[in-house]
Amino acid sequence: MLIIHSDKTRDRRTQTELCGGQLVAPFECPERVDYIIERARQEQLGEIRAPQSYDLAPVLAIHDRDYIEFLRGAWEQWKTDGHEGEAIPNIWPSRRMPGRHLPRNIEARLGYYALAGETSINADSFTSALLSKDIALTALDHVLTSGESAFALCRPPGHHAAVDQFGGYCFINNVAVAAQRARDQGRQRVAILDIDFHHGNGTQDIFYTRNDVLTLSLHGDPMDEFPYFLGFAEETGESNGTGYNVNYPLPSGTDYATWSKHLEQAKARIRDFAPELLIIALGVDTFENDPISSFKLKSPDYLDIGRRIHELGLPTLFVMEGGYAVEEIGINAVNVLKGFDNA
Amino acid sequence: MLIIHSDKTRDRRTQTELCGGQLVAPFECPERVDYIIERARQEQLGEIRAPQSYDLAPVLAIHDRDYIEFLRGAWEQWKTDGHEGEAIPNIWPSRRMPGRHLPRNIEARLGYYALAGETSINADSFTSALLSKDIALTALDHVLTSGESAFALCRPPGHHAAVDQFGGYCFINNVAVAAQRARDQGRQRVAILDIDFHHGNGTQDIFYTRNDVLTLSLHGDPMDEFPYFLGFAEETGESNGTGYNVNYPLPSGTDYATWSKHLEQAKARIRDFAPELLIIALGVDTFENDPISSFKLKSPDYLDIGRRIHELGLPTLFVMEGGYAVEEIGINAVNVLKGFDNA
Repeated sequence: MLIIHSDKTRDRRTQTELCGGQLVAPFECPERVDYIIERARQEQLGEIRAPQSYDLAPVLAIHDRDYIEFLRGAWEQWKTDGHEGEAIPNIWPSRRMPGRHLPRNIEARLGYYALAGETSINADSFTSALLSKDIALTALDHVLTSGESAFALCRPPGHHAAVDQFGGYCFINNVAVAAQRARDQGRQRVAILDIDFHHGNGTQDIFYTRNDVLTLSLHGDPMDEFPYFLGFAEETGESNGTGYNVNYPLPSGTDYATWSKHLEQAKARIRDFAPELLIIALGVDTFENDPISSFKLKSPDYLDIGRRIHELGLPTLFVMEGGYAVEEIGINAVNVLKGFDNA
Repeated sequence: MLIIHSDKTRDRRTQTELCGGQLVAPFECPERVDYIIERARQEQLGEIRAPQSYDLAPVLAIHDRDYIEFLRGAWEQWKTDGHEGEAIPNIWPSRRMPGRHLPRNIEARLGYYALAGETSINADSFTSALLSKDIALTALDHVLTSGESAFALCRPPGHHAAVDQFGGYCFINNVAVAAQRARDQGRQRVAILDIDFHHGNGTQDIFYTRNDVLTLSLHGDPMDEFPYFLGFAEETGESNGTGYNVNYPLPSGTDYATWSKHLEQAKARIRDFAPELLIIALGVDTFENDPISSFKLKSPDYLDIGRRIHELGLPTLFVMEGGYAVEEIGINAVNVLKGFDNA
C-alpha cells in the first residue's frame, strides 16, 4: 500500500498540554509518526512518497474562512498581546454566555474557536495542519486516479476539528477535506468510518445535514470519554442527513469480540449505502495499553480489523488519527494496513 | 459602617491559575482581604463582626441544586479519578457540541459547570464559597433590621457565578443571594449596582427575566475584556425583565470623568426604579494600576464614588468583589466606604 509521509510532521512540537490540572508534555507528539513509519519500513508495507502541496480551496470547502484565518493569525496575536505560554483557551461561549459577538481579544477568540483546552496553539500549529491536509489529499488523489488504496500518515490528526472549531489535537479535518474533494472530483457517495477510540465529532458536525457522505464512528461512550458532549447513538443526522450519521458508543473495557460485532454492523450500513469510496479515520488508541483510552484491543486484533475492512471491496483511503501508546502505535497501525493488504 | 469579616477567608488558597497559557499564582489571593481589613482598622471605619451561619436555602433560591451538589463533590471526584493538579476545565459544551447530556466523567462535569478556566477548584472551594455567602447574608440582615448600611468583606467574590456555572473566581453569587433574601424578607424592589471592572455576568444571568431586581453594571467593553461573551449594551433583559438590566460597557483607558458620568446615568435609572434596598457589587479593579484591568481610576476617586452612591439615600449593602492590585486594594475599597460614611 502506498504511504504518504513527510518528515516535516516532526515540526509540530508543542511544549504543553493541559491535562488533569497540570501542564504536561503532549501525548500527541512527533514520535508517534516515527514509530509508524519505522514499522512500515520494517514490514515493507509499500512505497513511501512525499506529499504534494494543495492550496486552501479544499479546506475552505469544509471549514469556515474566518476560522482558517483565525488559525493563521492566532499565535502572532497571542504573542503580541504579551502572553508568555502557548495559547490555551481559558474562557469560551458557555451555556449561559452564548457568544453572539466575536470579541476582538485573542483570549476570547481562542475560546470561541476551541472545543477543548488540551490543544495548545504555538508557532507551528497552522503550517503543520496545512501539511497534514496535504498528506491526506495526496493519498486521496492516488486512490481516485489509481483505484488502489493508500495510507495518509497525517499529523496532527483531524477528526475532532469541526466546521469552525479546533480541539482534541485537531485543526483541519483531514478525512472531511478528503471526502469533500472526492465528491468534487465526481464520486457520488463517500463513507467515512471512524475507528479511533474517540468519537469523530468534527466529522459528524461537518456532514450532519448531508446524505452524500455517510459518517460512522465506533468509540468510547461520551458519558465517560472525550469529547463527552457529542457522539451519542441518538445523533443520526438532520434534515437531508437524517439517517446518514451512525454512532456506536461502547463502554469502558470493550474487548475485540464486542468491538468487532459493531464493526460488522457499521459494514452492513456501509454496504447499504454503496459508496464509491471508503475513508477510514484510523486511530489505534483502542489498544489495551493506550494511556488515555479504555478499550482492550490487542495488537493481533488490528490485523483482523484490516481484513474485515477489506471485505467491503472498496477503494479505501486510510487517514491517521489518534493512538498514544507510542511504542505500540507502529505495530498496531501497520497491522491494520497489513491485514487489509494481505486479505 | 459595620464590617462583616472572617479570618477563615484565608483558607481559600489555590495554587494555580491558568493565565496566558501558564499556571501562575492566583490573582485572587488571601492577601486581598488582609489589606482591606488592615486599612479598615487603620481608618476606624467601624465595628468588625464575624459572620453568622446560614443554611443552603438562600443559595438554592438562586442557584440550581445540581450545580451546588457538583460544587460540593467536585474535588473528591477529581481526586478519585486520579488527577494530580487542581481541577481546571479543559473541555466544555462548545458552540458545536451543545451538551444535551450531562456526562458522568468529572472532566466533563467540570467543563459543563464552568464558564471560564482560571478558577481552579481545590479542597477548600466549596466551604470558602459557603463562608463568603454567610458574610454577605450577615451584612444583609444587619441592613434589613437596622436600616443602616454595611460592608460584607466577601472572598471568594460572586458576581460572575451564574445560575449553574462558576468562573471568574466566583462560585456562589453573593449579591444575588442577598438580593433574593431581601425580596423574601419583604423588600419589594432591590437594585444591584456592579462597579467592578468586569461585567457582572452572573448577576445579569440570574435576574434577566425579572423586574423586581434591577441589575446595572459599569465595566470594560466585553469585546476586549473578560468575560467577553456577555455584558453588551443591547442586553436589557427578557420577558418580565425587559428594561431591568442595564449595561454600561466602557473602553480601555476610561478615566474617572467618563466613568462617573455613567455612574450618574446608573443612579438616575435606580432613582426611577425606587428600590427599597441598594446592593453594590464592589470591585476596585477599576484602579489605574490593577494588573488585569484597563481603567484609569485613582485612589481619591474612590472617596467620590462613595459620596455619589450615598446621594441615592438608600440602605446600602456593599459586597466585596474584585480588585487585584493587592497593595492598593485596601486603600481603594475603604475609600468607597469612607466616602459613603462621610457624605
